[in-house]
Amino acid sequence: MSHMEIREFQEMMKRLYYKRDSERGIDGTFNWLVDEVHELGAELKGSDREATEKEFADVIAWLASLANIMGIDLEQATLNKYNHKCPKCQSSPCACTF
Amino acid sequence: MSHMEIREFQEMMKRLYYKRDSERGIDGTFNWLVDEVHELGAELKGSDREATEKEFADVIAWLASLANIMGIDLEQATLNKYNHKCPKCQSSPCACTF
Repeated sequence: MSHMEIREFQEMMKRLYYKRDSERGIDGTFNWLVDEVHELGAELKGSDREATEKEFADVIAWLASLANIMGIDLEQATLNKYNHKCPKCQSSPCACTF
Repeated sequence: MSHMEIREFQEMMKRLYYKRDSERGIDGTFNWLVDEVHELGAELKGSDREATEKEFADVIAWLASLANIMGIDLEQATLNKYNHKCPKCQSSPCACTF
């Protein structure tokens, strides 16, 4: 089983796609992310496990591409908000009562 | 600077939110993911960097929650498709001509 940090994945996406991502720009890349989320939603209703897994991969890939052209460190942003406890109730597991 | 593998993050989300995520179910959790993507899109048009970073965090968090209730290993699914080369042209950087 291989391992990959969020940051490593974002860096891999940068090596693979940064030139095209930056030429496409923020709006176009965000629109691709939205399309991939919709494709994931369609696969969730089906029974093709491998196709569903590929759509999960595409969503995180386009999220990383968007973070790259925004100059945002996705791993740091993620850990700043979700650091082993719920950002709202500060507990693990979350104990929010809403 | 802290580090986190995609798998570790998914496991953290499972500890924090699995009970609520599984009770909410696939459709409801997918709808939350869609909402978070739209919130990210709104922040991209603004100038609040920290708020934008939090929306990136929320999108990957809800994607991980959805993967948890689907029983999908997000890191493995991601590496199965994006393993240091473009899945279409097999090159790094991507050399697709479309």
